[in-house]
Amino acid sequence: MADKTAITPTRSEDFPEWYQQVIKAADMAENSETRGCMVIKPWGYGIWELIQKDLDARFKATGHENAYFPLLIPLAYLEKEAEHAEGFATECAVVTHHRLEAQKDPETGKTKMIPSGKLAEPYVIRPTSETIIGAAFARWVESYRDLPLLINQWANVMRWEMRPRLFLRTAEFLWQEGHTAHETATEAVAETTTIHQLYSDFLRDVLAIPVVMGEKTEAERFPGAEMTLTVEAMVQDKKAIQAGTSHYMGQNFSSAQDISFVDRENKKQFAHTTSWGVSTRLIGTLIMAHSDDDGLVLPPQVAPKQIVIIPVTPKEESRQAIIDACHALAQTLTSQTFHGQNLRVHVDDREIGGGQKKWEWVKKGVPLRIEIGPRDLESHKVCLQRRDQGIRDKSFLDREEFLREVQSHLDAVHQSLLQRARTLREEGTSECTDLASFESHWSSSDFPGWLLTPWDGSREQEEELSKKHKIAIRCIPISEEVASEAPCILTGNPTTRRALWGRSY
Amino acid sequence: MADKTAITPTRSEDFPEWYQQVIKAADMAENSETRGCMVIKPWGYGIWELIQKDLDARFKATGHENAYFPLLIPLAYLEKEAEHAEGFATECAVVTHHRLEAQKDPETGKTKMIPSGKLAEPYVIRPTSETIIGAAFARWVESYRDLPLLINQWANVMRWEMRPRLFLRTAEFLWQEGHTAHETATEAVAETTTIHQLYSDFLRDVLAIPVVMGEKTEAERFPGAEMTLTVEAMVQDKKAIQAGTSHYMGQNFSSAQDISFVDRENKKQFAHTTSWGVSTRLIGTLIMAHSDDDGLVLPPQVAPKQIVIIPVTPKEESRQAIIDACHALAQTLTSQTFHGQNLRVHVDDREIGGGQKKWEWVKKGVPLRIEIGPRDLESHKVCLQRRDQGIRDKSFLDREEFLREVQSHLDAVHQSLLQRARTLREEGTSECTDLASFESHWSSSDFPGWLLTPWDGSREQEEELSKKHKIAIRCIPISEEVASEAPCILTGNPTTRRALWGRSY
Repeated sequence: MADKTAITPTRSEDFPEWYQQVIKAADMAENSETRGCMVIKPWGYGIWELIQKDLDARFKATGHENAYFPLLIPLAYLEKEAEHAEGFATECAVVTHHRLEAQKDPETGKTKMIPSGKLAEPYVIRPTSETIIGAAFARWVESYRDLPLLINQWANVMRWEMRPRLFLRTAEFLWQEGHTAHETATEAVAETTTIHQLYSDFLRDVLAIPVVMGEKTEAERFPGAEMTLTVEAMVQDKKAIQAGTSHYMGQNFSSAQDISFVDRENKKQFAHTTSWGVSTRLIGTLIMAHSDDDGLVLPPQVAPKQIVIIPVTPKEESRQAIIDACHALAQTLTSQTFHGQNLRVHVDDREIGGGQKKWEWVKKGVPLRIEIGPRDLESHKVCLQRRDQGIRDKSFLDREEFLREVQSHLDAVHQSLLQRARTLREEGTSECTDLASFESHWSSSDFPGWLLTPWDGSREQEEELSKKHKIAIRCIPISEEVASEAPCILTGNPTTRRALWGRSY
Repeated sequence: MADKTAITPTRSEDFPEWYQQVIKAADMAENSETRGCMVIKPWGYGIWELIQKDLDARFKATGHENAYFPLLIPLAYLEKEAEHAEGFATECAVVTHHRLEAQKDPETGKTKMIPSGKLAEPYVIRPTSETIIGAAFARWVESYRDLPLLINQWANVMRWEMRPRLFLRTAEFLWQEGHTAHETATEAVAETTTIHQLYSDFLRDVLAIPVVMGEKTEAERFPGAEMTLTVEAMVQDKKAIQAGTSHYMGQNFSSAQDISFVDRENKKQFAHTTSWGVSTRLIGTLIMAHSDDDGLVLPPQVAPKQIVIIPVTPKEESRQAIIDACHALAQTLTSQTFHGQNLRVHVDDREIGGGQKKWEWVKKGVPLRIEIGPRDLESHKVCLQRRDQGIRDKSFLDREEFLREVQSHLDAVHQSLLQRARTLREEGTSECTDLASFESHWSSSDFPGWLLTPWDGSREQEEELSKKHKIAIRCIPISEEVASEAPCILTGNPTTRRALWGRSY
């Protein structure tokens, strides 16, 4: 196995194909026969469960409650907000019938099921739930005393995708969508930024992904929003992934749907609404951010198993003692906690070769692997291997020492992944002040990285440049200090505005 | 408020309408404009989250893993298992188009969205996932070494309901569906009974609902199953609710879908499969089982708030001290646990009347209410009211004593609900050995209760009797001891088989 990698092709050979192979090797998900829809297998779904658990606690800690709204949206709802309807019309799955009828094929004699019971009004499967949740909000809100309304939903949504890709872009995906209504614009904007920060913290502290926080330009905004805040992650081919968005809707949806209330001066007002979401796309993001040519690399907090213990049993006579020692260690570890949750530990005592075992867990991205062999048993030692380090790196630790320091080993994995991702992003981002180098940048390499430029061009100019180079303004980064004035790369007008350009998924 | 009840009508006046009003008064759910679909509001969804959390831990402890499969099922999949397809054909929502097109109405000038992009092969929204999960199992299983496959999915499903009723029967509902594949019939049957017992334990120990465990007759079996085990709950109008089912499919689905494996003798075999599920219907069941004429009554383990603390502040000068004492008590309580989870405690310090507060929490079914007033503050006492007891019953306890015994108070609520439900069921179930009294029983009262009879009639005879009296055999109860021989109420043939008959939801 000297220089061979567990995943073929490698990242540098063929990044998109490498991505598919990492997912396959880790047994995370697969395509189904339903067009564009994936099956999320237990290892992939386990990651999603951990993401959900962490985010859900953050939403609740900031005052949000979960609820559940219908999957099917009456067409009339969609028609209310024109921009929104237009934004999603081309990718809606439409339900037109409510039963099936068996019909015998006269030629083959086989029974075929055909749609029957045509609906007077068709429904679409929710591509997002602003319209159906807005209809509920309109019923619930009467007075300013009913506000704010802070609701989140964990659900499946559907957007008919023409070029699906596991986790990153699938016709059906799982997500959470927050929907809130407020008395004033100020409060709604504050909610939007609170969630923006929450997403950024979560990505950094749980997924070990540093993000650029910024605002979308008008061209890239959510259909119907007044402001879209985004967290943008750079992955290893230096493309951007929009990992989460938080939208301020102004009164666009509330006026279209009559989410109105009697205010403190006894006047009717429309509420200010927000919506925000992250999805199973986060799993695609973390794969592309951290994994290597040997497969998945998982940040410890979202690893379904954080530690795998492998008994090394060359001789039959010591076999049972070693297996027992492994289980005893696992039990002691499981009673310890990491970030408030009991450690997730697995003993792999299957009767298959040690090499096969090791590589399975390498490919599944388990942060720490522990081996215990006959000599370790005698000397009360364990052999520790970290997934973020070289595949042959190992250290021998006293069992007790390891038990005392297991959390710091897990922390170290998290920190090293985060640091690596930061370095990647720093090295992959350059500032650019003139159009000529801006234009040549995009053909300079397969992985050109991001450019930060002074920008005050129009929407049309932005769209033209974007189309020409297959890029987009990922965001106008939000930063504490205002940048100095510099000439816009296109118009030459002096501006303090900076745009972050890049290719994206 | 002397003899007035919070809910109108009462249970005895109009049970179905009482049920709707309990849900409304507790703010749990409401109908939506999507036909037959409900909005589950935070208080109702909070109950579902607690149900999920508890069940999910039980499934994982018995070796199951969660995964996620597509919402849309290709029609061709449904056609494979004829009985199954027929069973669900009349209630399937069918997706036939994948986009919308804006069309201007020439008369009104308004833009209308119409379905466009017709699919060559339509899809149905899953009414249940045997067929789509089976297709994945067929890909995953090759050898006996791949078995057993123990998968669970938390998902929404859709069955077009003509007479929807909140929680009990809705077009879309939330559920879990377990799907497993095994090497042998023995193992698959063991899985089916393990889950049957798991459901029964959960209902008794968490929802405080005693159930009858039994097997469905052929007429009542899941379409495509060889055996359906059920847990049947009696609710307060003495009707039955099928609270959960566990099906042994034999090789019906595996042969239709080619879930096959190479066995230990190197021969191809079809796997033996099972499926099992419970849904948001459990919430309807618990409402009907425990609630009273003042509204919802929640078993403590699924109460989103288990304890509500209400400051009683008649005088402005002591107001802040009392509110502070309430929050301090809440904080101390929250650090305690009940069944492994931190206590869920809420201080209601809104500036509204005490009576209004009290009744809100009564109607929401919170197990324990605590009041602290000026005198209680001085004497270090709290005033405790239990939701399962009379609405005016209260006891004054030393604060420290209450803190020491809070878990036993919650346990007492659980036990009293369970005991009440047991008594209801015992009093509502009679044995019956002759046809004449069997037939007159069903018109004897609005709430006739269940009858247990010796039964060896045919499927046709069962269906005829059922139709005549709007009843069904809820199950053939499973019991440790075999009943003595007695003549079947219809055929007169001696039999040890007993059938449990009742009306149902």
